[in-house]
Amino acid sequence: MDSSTPLIYIVEPYGGSIRRHNAALPHIYWDDAAVTRGDGVFETLLIRDGHPANLQRHLDRFQSSARLMELPEPNVADWIDATRQAVEEWSQRTDADAKCVWTYTRGRESTGHPSAWLTITPLGETVLKQRKKGVKVMTSPRGFTIDTSLPGVEEATEGGTPEPAPWLTVGAKTLNYAANMAALRYACSQGLDDVIYVDPATGRVLEGATSTVIVARPGRKLRTPTPGGDILPGTTQAALFEYAEEQGWRCKEKDMTVESLLDAESVWLVSSVRVAVRVTELDGRVLPAPANEDEVRELINAALGAE
Amino acid sequence: MDSSTPLIYIVEPYGGSIRRHNAALPHIYWDDAAVTRGDGVFETLLIRDGHPANLQRHLDRFQSSARLMELPEPNVADWIDATRQAVEEWSQRTDADAKCVWTYTRGRESTGHPSAWLTITPLGETVLKQRKKGVKVMTSPRGFTIDTSLPGVEEATEGGTPEPAPWLTVGAKTLNYAANMAALRYACSQGLDDVIYVDPATGRVLEGATSTVIVARPGRKLRTPTPGGDILPGTTQAALFEYAEEQGWRCKEKDMTVESLLDAESVWLVSSVRVAVRVTELDGRVLPAPANEDEVRELINAALGAE
Repeated sequence: MDSSTPLIYIVEPYGGSIRRHNAALPHIYWDDAAVTRGDGVFETLLIRDGHPANLQRHLDRFQSSARLMELPEPNVADWIDATRQAVEEWSQRTDADAKCVWTYTRGRESTGHPSAWLTITPLGETVLKQRKKGVKVMTSPRGFTIDTSLPGVEEATEGGTPEPAPWLTVGAKTLNYAANMAALRYACSQGLDDVIYVDPATGRVLEGATSTVIVARPGRKLRTPTPGGDILPGTTQAALFEYAEEQGWRCKEKDMTVESLLDAESVWLVSSVRVAVRVTELDGRVLPAPANEDEVRELINAALGAE
Repeated sequence: MDSSTPLIYIVEPYGGSIRRHNAALPHIYWDDAAVTRGDGVFETLLIRDGHPANLQRHLDRFQSSARLMELPEPNVADWIDATRQAVEEWSQRTDADAKCVWTYTRGRESTGHPSAWLTITPLGETVLKQRKKGVKVMTSPRGFTIDTSLPGVEEATEGGTPEPAPWLTVGAKTLNYAANMAALRYACSQGLDDVIYVDPATGRVLEGATSTVIVARPGRKLRTPTPGGDILPGTTQAALFEYAEEQGWRCKEKDMTVESLLDAESVWLVSSVRVAVRVTELDGRVLPAPANEDEVRELINAALGAE
């Protein structure tokens, strides 16, 4: 078998079987809500040294996403079991880093049962290159503003205290990534690698298209834009901050502007599979490598292995 | 064969074959962008009396959505051909109204070719009931505000005139409907049938979760919120306005408030398959049937048959 052939494991809902699926065959039906409405949630995990990295945080966010989307509670034991089985099989092929994606959808309209599966694939060339060379980034508005404090139904109909719209999928990692993908294509067409979203009204830095923004400042300080609301809490950022604090770094969640990125010691995009890529250019301004570049990179890598 | 079994026709890209697919088998692969990112566009058409209704407007919007998403230009002749073949087969079973969905995705990551197919299915009981009985609706904020005029990259980096973010998918009918589905589930949990989005900042009525808002006013007047920007242009609304003008109605696109819905002669949600459902209750206020209810309904139905 080609070593790049993906592994697929189907995770049946409600404690059903976990079974291997042949990746050469389709397994998703025409009426699956993932296909018709992007109605599902996912997590992407790094497989390193024969283990899923940062597993508990991914499980927590996966459950939280499912809850926010009113999907049936995923059976955590099944997901752990399926991941372990798949990783074990994968590890017989290679010990290189790999990517594991969990997908959990509202399922087929005709059955009403959720669909769930995981895949393991090798890392792409781009990821490996960006880890080494860093990324050139443009800042940009997201294109829409998420209303984190809204008059809810009560207010709209009969007065009451403002509250977020109760069906808001903010905070859930849903399959609705079309706009993020479009932003990345645009950056690519400009000879760039990635996008950092900025709120045009306030100048507040939000997040990367598929990553969390981290800033290193002199004196072993790390900063990240306060997660929650319109910023998806990052599992890698959380692991990093916990570990870095233990190593004597001072870590803080704090709103920041583009200016504070430009005058930082270094700026990083962190995410599960790319792990940490340094921003080498921001809006055309070169961000020179800091003296501690390798130290920061090692810190982030170590944080993922720390559990 | 069960008369409710869906028909599926696969439309190969680049002028390939059009072929029937057995609906009992899956046909979508694990790495299709529709599944992994909700990255694709769709159209939903009414099949009535052996014909796809309002075909040209659906084709136009389908092409426009694909262009906005930077998908390869769909081959219109193939889509017409596939639709005709499928409708012909379907019509041998039944002459009742049916629903046809075109789906066009960025395709498999491993091949880079778009995926395309259409389905025909019978109408659900809910649609038939709502057509007769109307719908109870709540107004609500959408949960996010689409920035229709944004500082673009030029402005963010070196100054310039404000322009929309170039990767914005506003105006494309993408598969990213998870939030709309969540809003409908919420409405349903409150004993209601549908949602009309209202901009909380301005009080401006936007659209239904899957439909366009139409208001009838005394003196044979029809109004709809000005489409474009954060309101998807509706194919049914466009057909209605063109036909109604010919029949002596005065039709206007015009911003409106919830108050102007409450004091209208009648309020309708129009869309391809439900066609026209009257709003019988809005935020708990009963909207009584107007004397011309049947006339308006017939007008909308006739508009769809007028091409």
